[in-house]
Amino acid sequence: MKREGFFITLEGGDGSGKTTILGRVAAYLQNHSMPYIITREPGGIEIAEKIRSIILDPAHTAMDARTEALLYAAARSQHLAEVVEPALEQGITVLCDRFVDSSLVYQGVARGLGIEAVREINRFATGGRMPDLTFYLDVDPEVGLSRINANQSREVNRLDLESLEFHRKVKAGYEQVIAAEKQRIVVLDANRPVHMVEQELVQVLKDRILKDF
Amino acid sequence: MKREGFFITLEGGDGSGKTTILGRVAAYLQNHSMPYIITREPGGIEIAEKIRSIILDPAHTAMDARTEALLYAAARSQHLAEVVEPALEQGITVLCDRFVDSSLVYQGVARGLGIEAVREINRFATGGRMPDLTFYLDVDPEVGLSRINANQSREVNRLDLESLEFHRKVKAGYEQVIAAEKQRIVVLDANRPVHMVEQELVQVLKDRILKDF
Repeated sequence: MKREGFFITLEGGDGSGKTTILGRVAAYLQNHSMPYIITREPGGIEIAEKIRSIILDPAHTAMDARTEALLYAAARSQHLAEVVEPALEQGITVLCDRFVDSSLVYQGVARGLGIEAVREINRFATGGRMPDLTFYLDVDPEVGLSRINANQSREVNRLDLESLEFHRKVKAGYEQVIAAEKQRIVVLDANRPVHMVEQELVQVLKDRILKDF
Repeated sequence: MKREGFFITLEGGDGSGKTTILGRVAAYLQNHSMPYIITREPGGIEIAEKIRSIILDPAHTAMDARTEALLYAAARSQHLAEVVEPALEQGITVLCDRFVDSSLVYQGVARGLGIEAVREINRFATGGRMPDLTFYLDVDPEVGLSRINANQSREVNRLDLESLEFHRKVKAGYEQVIAAEKQRIVVLDANRPVHMVEQELVQVLKDRILKDF
């Protein structure tokens, strides 16, 4: 059978457990012999890595919010062209940690640029490519922050320096974005223990992906 | 008298004589005691310079055209925020060597991304800021190329490696962009000797700028 791979993305605030859940989705695909790759922007793509390093440089506190949004979109288009599209074309499922929804939330809502304006530049960046399925890990800001602080191995970057207030804005932002795309985006309550999240996740994969494969 | 500065841009293919003409506009403003700055993107702005260096790195031949257009837009928004807007707010006239029109032509037409799509991301980048007046130096591609080749002191970058065919596309692109904005964009025949171009230029400045100052 020759068909394009599935494009699955994970979304959620920091500390929502995206990395763990991504591993569980991967295990599911592996068990069902579906070829897949796991990626995230900038994903080792030289041009995208260089773009991302400009965004995350702690010295760049004077970066204009529009500049930041355009740089995220630029890294996205390069990552799509070099990683995502070639894999999908070969029938490989792509699991991507964060995608356009993150920009709508972080730049559109939290930074105040507006969801529609950010959606427009991302439509340009992606050429209209959108995920077939997106899992949003919904976590209370307090829970998310406490998980981040417990994790010592993670590098602290400019975005982490933001406060609980910012995490609350992010959650409200995701709620706005989800409301507009209830078919594509599946909300998982990530305050629960991971095995419970996984159980629900597997059911969605069975219903939405496995039946088409 | 307290008012915003004028925003004047120069456009034209490589070898059209933009730099020379920019100097003549500056001399005119100087003679009329109008405070001004001359700039061009990335304009020494650290973030914008870093973005531009990614675009112009000759190693990056695999850069996606959309990525390139988004990076130009990103450098533009930062340059606007740090250089152009603060000057205009202080009543200082800003002379800028290339602006949005260049992107419409180079990315929209020559790279084939479409004028409207590129206009959209630039509208985001600029927050709608457009020049009060734009001079387009219209030069035949053959004349432009021969001037470039005669100038040994100029660094050769990735864009210069393009052919005469590319210069022709650029000229056709400018014609499309101009057609849509005849009020803002003044076309100067730059195949003529520079003193003749300057004479026409001065008349336009008298009519369009000096009377309002």
